[in-house]
Amino acid sequence: VSTNQTRITVRFCETDLMGIVHHANYLQYFEVGRVEWLKERGFSYEKWMAAGLHLPVVEANVRYRKAARFDDELVIETRVVETTRVTLRFGYVVRRDDVVIAEGDTLLACVDDRMIPRRLPKEITSVLATQ
Amino acid sequence: VSTNQTRITVRFCETDLMGIVHHANYLQYFEVGRVEWLKERGFSYEKWMAAGLHLPVVEANVRYRKAARFDDELVIETRVVETTRVTLRFGYVVRRDDVVIAEGDTLLACVDDRMIPRRLPKEITSVLATQ
Amino acid sequence: VSTNQTRITVRFCETDLMGIVHHANYLQYFEVGRVEWLKERGFSYEKWMAAGLHLPVVEANVRYRKAARFDDELVIETRVVETTRVTLRFGYVVRRDDVVIAEGDTLLACVDDRMIPRRLPKEITSVLATQ
Amino acid sequence: VSTNQTRITVRFCETDLMGIVHHANYLQYFEVGRVEWLKERGFSYEKWMAAGLHLPVVEANVRYRKAARFDDELVIETRVVETTRVTLRFGYVVRRDDVVIAEGDTLLACVDDRMIPRRLPKEITSVLATQ
Repeated sequence: VSTNQTRITVRFCETDLMGIVHHANYLQYFEVGRVEWLKERGFSYEKWMAAGLHLPVVEANVRYRKAARFDDELVIETRVVETTRVTLRFGYVVRRDDVVIAEGDTLLACVDDRMIPRRLPKEITSVLATQ
Repeated sequence: VSTNQTRITVRFCETDLMGIVHHANYLQYFEVGRVEWLKERGFSYEKWMAAGLHLPVVEANVRYRKAARFDDELVIETRVVETTRVTLRFGYVVRRDDVVIAEGDTLLACVDDRMIPRRLPKEITSVLATQ
Repeated sequence: VSTNQTRITVRFCETDLMGIVHHANYLQYFEVGRVEWLKERGFSYEKWMAAGLHLPVVEANVRYRKAARFDDELVIETRVVETTRVTLRFGYVVRRDDVVIAEGDTLLACVDDRMIPRRLPKEITSVLATQ
Repeated sequence: VSTNQTRITVRFCETDLMGIVHHANYLQYFEVGRVEWLKERGFSYEKWMAAGLHLPVVEANVRYRKAARFDDELVIETRVVETTRVTLRFGYVVRRDDVVIAEGDTLLACVDDRMIPRRLPKEITSVLATQ
């Protein structure tokens, strides 16, 4: 399965009074990785919009392994771990060098403008078939 | 001039590694105060939308006086400090009991869907005239 | 089991370009509910700090049921769903009137200043025993 | 005067329901630029901490020129625009290609652990003298 590596540097505002990255920010990191995964395979946000389709997150799960701190350089590893006709599940591992900081997954549903579930477009399922 | 008092409690995620509220969050606090000021005078977001008007922030200024901390109860005092035919300037004071934590102001411009400046609606200027 | 109801109003800055509350913010809402649950039972943050203990989030899971929008009034229902000698799992339901917007849970571990797992203090386990 | 160029890509979670970057996020962008400016000249956060010094933001001003949108690539241009014995004022211009998106400045005060104002360390004033 094809994975993406996205680099980010922890921002000051992403820490909390415990001196570590606040746990809610990992969902933002996952999203940064997912956006890049999709974009690199030709699925920009404009393309989804033009097709009248959206990919809302319907489920998210995170396991926090180690604390990350201000200015840490992190790598977000993103891949697709499961697909159905209308959903995509992305899996993520966030690392600082060899240390796993957090892992998780998010389930996205393909819907139209009225939030009715729709089949994932052929272009994306054929890309997924080759990964 | 008529002012509003809005109470908020500092959230854990709003602190940073210095153990204090991160300075960017005060623009969010000001916004909470501004939204309530407008809503209490009958200017809900739906009303602006229905009129095809928006009120983007075009300028923001903050002076930080004292640190606020997790779980502090803050009062945001909001009032209109200046108006033109197309702009509104709100002023804010954030207090913890008698201590001023931050002060500032934001300038908002009335624009239409194409971002063309528009006169403020009569309803709001007449409310402002009586304050 | 004893539950808490915490009311929040969706902030403008918590929405995203889809016009709905960004999914990462629900972990912040859960936290607001959890902080209040603990505080109402006498477990303020200062108390944990004074005991040299912390409660970092080690796992988080969210299922998104319906979209919430700007200015929605939401109720966060918080309760403890599972305890071990060193962990606490909180469960959450976020509602707008009778509509379930999101559900989830977070697992917290009791650790000391060096991040070594510690037994939960007797005060909290005895409170939990009576819930 | 020596300036820094920092590149960022707008994150999905940084947009609001108007479809544009929420105005509070620019203070976070400014901070990203400032942290890099300091780090590239040898003033990492650890170094300040080791000296028992902090640089809290005591004033912030932003003028919003144009909207930025999801996935826009922005350049934050950062420089020091004013210094006193105890303060540093940073100026920022955020651009998308040749378009100025926002401009602003933040005033930082050098303080010790008890928040008492302290002279800026010689190392930084001598770096500033050569800029």
